Amino acid sequence: MATDAWDGLLLGATLVTLADDAGYGLIKDAALGWRDGVIVYAGPRSGLPSGAEAGADLVIEADGLVTPGLIDCHTHAVFAGNRAAEFEQRLQGASYEDIARAGGGIVSTVRAVREADEDALLAQSLQRVRALVADGATTLEIKSGYGLDFDNERKMLRVARRIGEVLGITVRTTFLGAHALPPEFAGRGEAYIDAVCDWLPRLHDEGLVDAVDAFAERIAFSIDQTRRVFEVARTLGLPVKLHADQLSDGAGAALVAEFGGLSADHVEHTSAAGVAAMAAAGTVAVLLPGAFHVLRETTLPPLDAFRSAGVPMAVATDCNPGTSPLLSLRQAMQLSCTHFRLTPEEALRGATVHAARALGLSDRGRLAVGQRADFACWRVSQPAELVYWLGGPLLAMSFAGGMRLT
Amino acid sequence: MATDAWDGLLLGATLVTLADDAGYGLIKDAALGWRDGVIVYAGPRSGLPSGAEAGADLVIEADGLVTPGLIDCHTHAVFAGNRAAEFEQRLQGASYEDIARAGGGIVSTVRAVREADEDALLAQSLQRVRALVADGATTLEIKSGYGLDFDNERKMLRVARRIGEVLGITVRTTFLGAHALPPEFAGRGEAYIDAVCDWLPRLHDEGLVDAVDAFAERIAFSIDQTRRVFEVARTLGLPVKLHADQLSDGAGAALVAEFGGLSADHVEHTSAAGVAAMAAAGTVAVLLPGAFHVLRETTLPPLDAFRSAGVPMAVATDCNPGTSPLLSLRQAMQLSCTHFRLTPEEALRGATVHAARALGLSDRGRLAVGQRADFACWRVSQPAELVYWLGGPLLAMSFAGGMRLT
Ligand SMILES: [Zn+2]
Ligand SMILES: [Zn+2]
Repeated sequence: MATDAWDGLLLGATLVTLADDAGYGLIKDAALGWRDGVIVYAGPRSGLPSGAEAGADLVIEADGLVTPGLIDCHTHAVFAGNRAAEFEQRLQGASYEDIARAGGGIVSTVRAVREADEDALLAQSLQRVRALVADGATTLEIKSGYGLDFDNERKMLRVARRIGEVLGITVRTTFLGAHALPPEFAGRGEAYIDAVCDWLPRLHDEGLVDAVDAFAERIAFSIDQTRRVFEVARTLGLPVKLHADQLSDGAGAALVAEFGGLSADHVEHTSAAGVAAMAAAGTVAVLLPGAFHVLRETTLPPLDAFRSAGVPMAVATDCNPGTSPLLSLRQAMQLSCTHFRLTPEEALRGATVHAARALGLSDRGRLAVGQRADFACWRVSQPAELVYWLGGPLLAMSFAGGMRLT
Repeated sequence: MATDAWDGLLLGATLVTLADDAGYGLIKDAALGWRDGVIVYAGPRSGLPSGAEAGADLVIEADGLVTPGLIDCHTHAVFAGNRAAEFEQRLQGASYEDIARAGGGIVSTVRAVREADEDALLAQSLQRVRALVADGATTLEIKSGYGLDFDNERKMLRVARRIGEVLGITVRTTFLGAHALPPEFAGRGEAYIDAVCDWLPRLHDEGLVDAVDAFAERIAFSIDQTRRVFEVARTLGLPVKLHADQLSDGAGAALVAEFGGLSADHVEHTSAAGVAAMAAAGTVAVLLPGAFHVLRETTLPPLDAFRSAGVPMAVATDCNPGTSPLLSLRQAMQLSCTHFRLTPEEALRGATVHAARALGLSDRGRLAVGQRADFACWRVSQPAELVYWLGGPLLAMSFAGGMRLT
């Protein structure tokens, strides 16, 4: 390897490599070199090949900590409008029924998304994704699920793709047609699932779908309906994931495991059988403490069961206008420590290594040779500070694929 | 009034004036004019005196919302080091005793503050205050209380004063010598209170003290000890406030009310008698949801009793390294809504109008003619969004005394 071909070299900071399966993998007074968007050196500065510094196109001296770029593996960041008014009404004492009667709830977001043209939807959504990027995210999953008809689901997925292009980050798209029953299908859940199963291959043909998700819950879709959507995904070779067992144990985790799915998300009420099935299938548990916080839930996910079964736990924002208006993945990590008692290391691993796995990506999540040059530099001196401080502009700069983001 | 003398004029945004005792006091398509650091116009753009726009030195067209600058009326933002390691140890299962044995807890912050020279303490503290300012704060209270000897308490108060000068914001200093018993006074609480009562007039002589606080709790100082400190404050004409009834009902609120104090802070366990005494004395209840969140407390302050007794409720960060490492007052407002069920309007009023009152300041907290030109411009379209979004860079710009801060 000719070191004079390195595109960039970061010197002096402490690397939080997460290179091994436990521990932060700290390297003090380190060097991080990359070429063609990929890490070619991650080690002590003293071990740099001679000539590396002189030959690199870009040399940055940095303080603080460098972590892998944060990966937000569960967001609904593409939407129009917001539900702050509803948030306020609830605090003024309105019930969910009051709000639904006043046209609020998810239906109001569906209406706003349908009314927004693609450019308007992009502009609004970019603001939020820029906020997530400003706090360290370099890879994002974004779901559809507020269009609920072919054209509007397509519009959402196109906007998600465009966000990745505009910002220079990786966006993984997830088709979530089976998110809620749109008003025009009221009382006709099976017919709506027929429609979803029809849209999916067409959207996939356009290259808009990286994975398939559904909301399996008593108030949404049944396990049998979810299974129908997953079977279409399987014929297309698309990985599945699921909003599972958030409000009750609906055997959602077991279903997604049965399909060898990437992740079961929420999982507050997942049973021991569900945990075992996830472990056997290698399915990641995606924890979403933002919704837990906003909804003031009290039932914790079965964290110890996940730990002892070896189910990897990811942490994500669930950025959405109804139950989790989070604009920071670091905030989600903080909430996972406060509410779920994750250790700071588990929270960081959950937003990097395990989040990558939840997206089916093995090329990122650690600072190691061969991984993508996605990293975040922080104005802190120890990893726990990332979740200790609430708020604050801690990010000094970030890179995705070796290109500077912030 | 010659309008050609205005120093600045902000046009087009929606003002959240909080001018009346209830309601946001919204003015759409508004104008806000100031001169010599004071608001001279706050009303509809259409009502501007002719020539105002042409004559102003600075004219800014703005979108979004303009609120009074946020006022953080309870912080311990001057400290050295941090306690992220301790935060991590607790999440790894260490008990408070384990941490104390390992040299953690408040003692570790006292040690770090004593070891830092004034410039180092200033540099570290400025980072935090800059973060608070970056999320809308324009006035801050800062307490001493980690020095716990004359020189180091003095150093903290001097740093607090210098922060105000460096950043161009108002910093109100509070002497909190009676925060904790320093190691050298172990077992000699009365002697330590003697020392505190000796230091206070000397620090006041140097112009370093705007108010006096104490930590009245079974694990800290008794009501009688607190009373001794308050009596010295009274002879000096200094207003008092108190960390009261956080962990148990210690009649702290009643004591501060007896002294006509500015505020009783925390107040989770304040009794009905305490509430009545506060109402009679005009004492503000300062809610600190950050510590409540981090410590996972479950006993709410007597919010309905405060409301029906007409006790104004302020909201503050309590920014401190042990129990509330909050770098955003907006975050504290969010937590006050989620944990305490404050309405967004109560939260905003708590960080403006009522926070000003908790500091004894009547010249700020609202957007009205004669108030200081302290205001914050936000990239949102309704006030509830300030507490609805968790995280995110929502502040577009801010001014203090008519001078641009961010
Ligand atoms: Zn979701
Ligand atoms: Zn305090």
